[in-house]
Amino acid sequence: MERVPILKIGDILLVSIQIDMEDQVALQLQEDLADRIVATGCHGVIIDISALDIVDSFVGRTLATIAAISKVLDADTVVVGMRPAVAITLVELGLSLPGIRTALNVELGMDLLARERAAADDDADEEPDGADDAETPAVPAP
Amino acid sequence: MERVPILKIGDILLVSIQIDMEDQVALQLQEDLADRIVATGCHGVIIDISALDIVDSFVGRTLATIAAISKVLDADTVVVGMRPAVAITLVELGLSLPGIRTALNVELGMDLLARERAAADDDADEEPDGADDAETPAVPAP
Repeated sequence: MERVPILKIGDILLVSIQIDMEDQVALQLQEDLADRIVATGCHGVIIDISALDIVDSFVGRTLATIAAISKVLDADTVVVGMRPAVAITLVELGLSLPGIRTALNVELGMDLLARERAAADDDADEEPDGADDAETPAVPAP
Repeated sequence: MERVPILKIGDILLVSIQIDMEDQVALQLQEDLADRIVATGCHGVIIDISALDIVDSFVGRTLATIAAISKVLDADTVVVGMRPAVAITLVELGLSLPGIRTALNVELGMDLLARERAAADDDADEEPDGADDAETPAVPAP
């Protein structure tokens, strides 16, 4: 059976899908990716689909499942490299890939992941203050 | 015809070969890669072959040709992700991929390219001094 390779680049796992997404390939990819996220502690997954001529509902569902699995394992997913014709067909089919972030290419995908991570870290830092603010009455007692 | 996607990451072009390397695919990849090197001005090419079960003499020759073309266009090539079984078979077949640099994975390949680039830049900087040294006699005149 063919297997989609997963490449680690810094804090990101890169998957370039070039083969037909049959059931077994998709299941194997989900499993491999989950294992690699846990093994490496990576916080980002980039899936390049620039080689795909067609993204049907099965591929769309597979991408959504991968994004959901990654999210549970504390990693964000970005789909990159979608061809213009694929985007048009997706929308015509009524598939708008809900819950999946996209970027034009790998570099922009990496930027997006880095920005989101930085924003998430900032939020985490500010959380204690935010909690205090919530408990403080909006109008100070006289 | 299937086409191998070329992903730009910083100063490096990444190619992950997952489909069978037939004549037309190999020629197209060489052409696409040469075009992208010229268009982007990238100085490094990483070819990931972790998806390949078999590297025969044709694939070996294709990799060597890509490395040679890239070199002429001022880009270094590193082949990464070779499986242990592939390495054993290559040597048994008498193919040792002359002229091709290898690294275990994409990250190590990037490190190798960065080091080589830094060394090449240093050499370029030191060249005038080196020429002076060569003209200086080894033993100073009394």
